[in-house]
Amino acid sequence: MTAEIAEQPDILSGLLEQRAAIAEVARAIARRPPRFVLLAARGSSDHAALYAKYLIEVLLGLPSGLVSASTTTLYGAEPDLRDVLLLSVSQSGGSPDLVEVTEAAGRRGARTIAVTNTPSSPLCSVAELAVDIRAGTEHAVAATKTYTATLLALYLLVDAVRGGEGREVHAIGELARRTLEGTDSGVARAVDRYRFASRVIAAARGYSYATALEASLKLAETSYLATRAYSGADLLHGPVAAIDEETAVLAVTSAGKGGAAMREVLGAVSERGADVLTIGSAAAGMPGAVRIDVPETAEEVAPILEVLPVQRIALGLALARGGDPDAPRGLRKVTKTR
Amino acid sequence: MTAEIAEQPDILSGLLEQRAAIAEVARAIARRPPRFVLLAARGSSDHAALYAKYLIEVLLGLPSGLVSASTTTLYGAEPDLRDVLLLSVSQSGGSPDLVEVTEAAGRRGARTIAVTNTPSSPLCSVAELAVDIRAGTEHAVAATKTYTATLLALYLLVDAVRGGEGREVHAIGELARRTLEGTDSGVARAVDRYRFASRVIAAARGYSYATALEASLKLAETSYLATRAYSGADLLHGPVAAIDEETAVLAVTSAGKGGAAMREVLGAVSERGADVLTIGSAAAGMPGAVRIDVPETAEEVAPILEVLPVQRIALGLALARGGDPDAPRGLRKVTKTR
Repeated sequence: MTAEIAEQPDILSGLLEQRAAIAEVARAIARRPPRFVLLAARGSSDHAALYAKYLIEVLLGLPSGLVSASTTTLYGAEPDLRDVLLLSVSQSGGSPDLVEVTEAAGRRGARTIAVTNTPSSPLCSVAELAVDIRAGTEHAVAATKTYTATLLALYLLVDAVRGGEGREVHAIGELARRTLEGTDSGVARAVDRYRFASRVIAAARGYSYATALEASLKLAETSYLATRAYSGADLLHGPVAAIDEETAVLAVTSAGKGGAAMREVLGAVSERGADVLTIGSAAAGMPGAVRIDVPETAEEVAPILEVLPVQRIALGLALARGGDPDAPRGLRKVTKTR
Repeated sequence: MTAEIAEQPDILSGLLEQRAAIAEVARAIARRPPRFVLLAARGSSDHAALYAKYLIEVLLGLPSGLVSASTTTLYGAEPDLRDVLLLSVSQSGGSPDLVEVTEAAGRRGARTIAVTNTPSSPLCSVAELAVDIRAGTEHAVAATKTYTATLLALYLLVDAVRGGEGREVHAIGELARRTLEGTDSGVARAVDRYRFASRVIAAARGYSYATALEASLKLAETSYLATRAYSGADLLHGPVAAIDEETAVLAVTSAGKGGAAMREVLGAVSERGADVLTIGSAAAGMPGAVRIDVPETAEEVAPILEVLPVQRIALGLALARGGDPDAPRGLRKVTKTR
């Protein structure tokens, strides 16, 4: 996991160099523009899919939704999917439910695109088009480099559909390197402080909500922490009642509208005594017992960087608690659910 | 909260008698059939919206998605919403973000329907059509009767769009009464057993996933428990690693495909030593330290009944832990987020 976290700057730079292949897929989409976009994924890829949902709605002006696989796999739903684009996101491309959902969607008129790290996978063979995230084999069970490569691939795809040329991410590899180098002491402090935390809530708004979800999953699967992620707005609609002095709140606050909207949320949780860890390019101006600064980017690409210190904290906490982050108890790399 | 839980059988029966008004809205939808359905909601209503998403995909064969309000309210996204039906679900009808999302969606070509308990609300005034869930004023902060009334209203609406006449719910009031009467001892046992639980995971698959989410929220907001809900399939994709002998798993297992698919999940969590509480009409055949049986119905309407013992457990735990379930610390009935 340590090695795979460290590979990310190079993987992101390498993927940028392959932008032309992704732009080719984008041109195929643009030739027959969809009216709705559906996204299918599980686990970390589901968080990448949520990130893409925001991109699609904001940058492309298309309504979109996340697929509940079970409506197909359990209930055999047969929706009319003409004019629909389905993006199926999976690093392995081997999850039987995603293969089934993708194949079924194609039969019902959807155009289907597989976004995977495995061009030879079953998912790529049933999808009409494929995007290769080119992250190299990932050995650790906890996804790290495949997560950020998926985010970047999805960004490049959406950006190319709108005619962009990846301007906002042209230096993303270098920024990722600076992020990893610049967060050593913050990560170490967070690992120390939350070594004995038993209640962790992750929260963010907007694009960064995906990062909060990924933080919660990484902490659960590597450090066995009982965590939960909320959009900042949902948190204020009830769950804030469960926050007290025993709760650590991991807040993702990047420069931009999503981060700014977190100020009210952090006020509410601080008032209740929560111990706040803020991560992101707007962390410096927010309340927090520990603040981890990340280089500033356009808000819509911040999730690619914000998650880097999160991965390192999950790794550090797992080691500090005596766990094996490469092989968490009871998990396999590819989970075969239907 | 006790009184409002007890009112539910009468409210459900009363709403059935008003089916004609809902069928009228359904006819208006059917005259200009949508191709895509979006759902906007927060808190408990968001779980009702997820339930409706399954109904829409399976029973109507329409793709659908849950709205991320912030793409409108923070980022000003302007998607093309022609042929889209937006269902905005909110008991109060007073949440500014939902009002903004609904108004904006109407401007962009969507047909909009407000599903609320407050026909005079701002949300109803901006929506093209409205469905009144007729649950009477709800005083407790934790939604109970408005949740089940919303589920039934959404079911009746979807069922009427496909030309149904509510056959699967014709006795729902009586079944709700039997559920409340028949679960006294199971609820009391659960409250005893989980009085000191500190880690609770709720899990379900299919239609009942909405119940697991609602269970998690109810326990967080009334009993301040650090809970989290997973679809059974997602749970196996990582978070299962965090489950151990200290974890209570609240599993919703009703007769049907979703409940049957939970058997594998319950095997995995039991193997890890979790203490399992099963609730639903298929609970009897499942592993569990405590099993709470609920009368059997068609699977797609089971969520209306399954949540009743869940509400009573949340209430009982709040009282046992010295909380005030009518007025949880730090919460107001209507949360005004943007």
